[in-house]
Amino acid sequence: MIQQHLQAHRASLLGEITRKMAAGSIDSLLVTDLPTIRWLTGFSGSSARLLLVGGQAALFTDFRYQQQVRRETSGIAVVIMKDNLARELAACPLRLGERMALQADHVSWHEMRQLSEGLDGRQFHPVVGFFDGFRQFKHLAELEKMRKAVACSEQVLEEVVAMISPEVSEIDIAAEITYRHRKLGAEKDSFDPIVAGSVRSAMPHARPTAEKFVPGSLIVIDMGCIVDGYASDQTRTVALGRVPEEARKIYGIVRRAQQLGIDAARDGIGAKELDAEVRSFITAEGYGEAFGHGLGHGVGVEVHESPRVGKAGTETLREGMVFTIEPGIYLEGRFGVRIEDMVLLGPQGATPLQRFTKELIEL
Amino acid sequence: MIQQHLQAHRASLLGEITRKMAAGSIDSLLVTDLPTIRWLTGFSGSSARLLLVGGQAALFTDFRYQQQVRRETSGIAVVIMKDNLARELAACPLRLGERMALQADHVSWHEMRQLSEGLDGRQFHPVVGFFDGFRQFKHLAELEKMRKAVACSEQVLEEVVAMISPEVSEIDIAAEITYRHRKLGAEKDSFDPIVAGSVRSAMPHARPTAEKFVPGSLIVIDMGCIVDGYASDQTRTVALGRVPEEARKIYGIVRRAQQLGIDAARDGIGAKELDAEVRSFITAEGYGEAFGHGLGHGVGVEVHESPRVGKAGTETLREGMVFTIEPGIYLEGRFGVRIEDMVLLGPQGATPLQRFTKELIEL
Repeated sequence: MIQQHLQAHRASLLGEITRKMAAGSIDSLLVTDLPTIRWLTGFSGSSARLLLVGGQAALFTDFRYQQQVRRETSGIAVVIMKDNLARELAACPLRLGERMALQADHVSWHEMRQLSEGLDGRQFHPVVGFFDGFRQFKHLAELEKMRKAVACSEQVLEEVVAMISPEVSEIDIAAEITYRHRKLGAEKDSFDPIVAGSVRSAMPHARPTAEKFVPGSLIVIDMGCIVDGYASDQTRTVALGRVPEEARKIYGIVRRAQQLGIDAARDGIGAKELDAEVRSFITAEGYGEAFGHGLGHGVGVEVHESPRVGKAGTETLREGMVFTIEPGIYLEGRFGVRIEDMVLLGPQGATPLQRFTKELIEL
Repeated sequence: MIQQHLQAHRASLLGEITRKMAAGSIDSLLVTDLPTIRWLTGFSGSSARLLLVGGQAALFTDFRYQQQVRRETSGIAVVIMKDNLARELAACPLRLGERMALQADHVSWHEMRQLSEGLDGRQFHPVVGFFDGFRQFKHLAELEKMRKAVACSEQVLEEVVAMISPEVSEIDIAAEITYRHRKLGAEKDSFDPIVAGSVRSAMPHARPTAEKFVPGSLIVIDMGCIVDGYASDQTRTVALGRVPEEARKIYGIVRRAQQLGIDAARDGIGAKELDAEVRSFITAEGYGEAFGHGLGHGVGVEVHESPRVGKAGTETLREGMVFTIEPGIYLEGRFGVRIEDMVLLGPQGATPLQRFTKELIEL
């Protein structure tokens, strides 16, 4: 049922995309980023190019995906490539027209040059972030998939938090996360899990090490998975045993900052305004310098997508968007805290998709 | 000790690269693909650009990697970027010179345009596959890392083959592979494991499903991991219980084909000639049409790299190269067999890095 809705939704999206193309005087657009192709067609193969012309779509893939592409897509023309892309495009019944656009941020300079040569020296019109404004708004069927990804990853988080002890290492827990995501039906992690104990909790992008957990220290766990093509993303910071008063204090500030972000998010607020509200709270508490990254990012078929919720965010946050709210405070050489939920922006404000407690867990 | 050798090796590589640049009248080269940057400098961060000028190198990264870059590299200038790349390049003491090259196959059209704009409309010279001829030849220190990756993945293969039963699914085994690679110290899988039972064994790039193994059928397991930046890759086909005579016959043909590939590989043979020798054997056995991919590929910091050993392979195979030999026969809708080793080409011919039996295992 939901799957049928998604098909109808994709058809209507194609209509909107076609109108945006027409508004930019674009006759044809070659889509070269795989997440957008999966989002728009359902095709998950690793070899794919999608040509959009006047409301019609043609998907180019190779013989390896012959069966899969028919199973996963409907309502679009499929070309199993026997020649190079330029010649296949030239032979395609869809007319490329005068002005053909390429996704400049998702096509290599080399592929662009090859296409140009293969199409008689044709010049292309570059587009960047063309689909952001569409992908930001989540359909009910997409939300359902994301909720499944969240549920899967929350269950795994619960299981692995229970495994933390002075006997196990960051890598042990990271390996369990990946394993359990998969056993619970996820396609894979949405990114390599971050499991960062002790001083490494102060590194926002720490890689798990073979170091075992130290009693009296904090552990940042940042993880997510992909279910049916859609990503989840969540962070919790937990303690092994009782942590010093300062760590509890910082935890409390980050927790209040994160709640403030959820409460302040509303339809119509600028992404950078939301970031600024949370940032000024953390700054007033004296830790502004220690919050060295943006407040959040959109999540969908990619774990990091538009809107960017940070100092440089240009988007206005709108109902129907899903993004993370993840403030952190990092005291280099000492410890760090980050708390992250995904939220859905609705008419009543932002609702977190995660339910996992944000009380400080002291194991 | 080996690590010191690697440093010296990198310095001498930089000399060779500089000579190749000079031969192509290239004054400066911006390296934009991360595997090559890791190969040449040791830096494993996800944000990196490397400028090469007259035997000198400058590595550009961001503040997140400040500590890591100093730990992982030596002998090269490091720039922690505070501005966009074009302005950082303009401000760098290394002179870009008249003719600046970009890796056309590893830079987006967008980044190229941004760099051009930021550098006063500068035109770039495109290079493609510039480092292939260097990366193909493995240093002893690199081989040692690859042998570790092979040993890790062979142990995991042994463990998971013992777990195969009618009670477990492809996903179960794939999840175990990823988990055990990590627990044994690998950074990660070198690619998502392929575990393909029954009819899915006939799909060379099958994704693991929730289907359980069926007695009397074949299972293709294609897996590898990354240890210290270097990849492994191996495939075995095993049987659950006794398989039909035809499956045993096909297994025997693939096994002989794979051994033929190992025996025929020698310094000086063309990559496509080696492919052709194995292919003509399989064709003579009546299954040429069912061997739908190339014979193999180079392995190093990337699991798929130069040389390409297939019909379209243009390289000559040389002593010091490491590549896979992996013929397969795929009978659509029925079953498939693939056997793959990595081999090191030495003065006496090719030596497989894997030791796992190639006898048909019937569990």
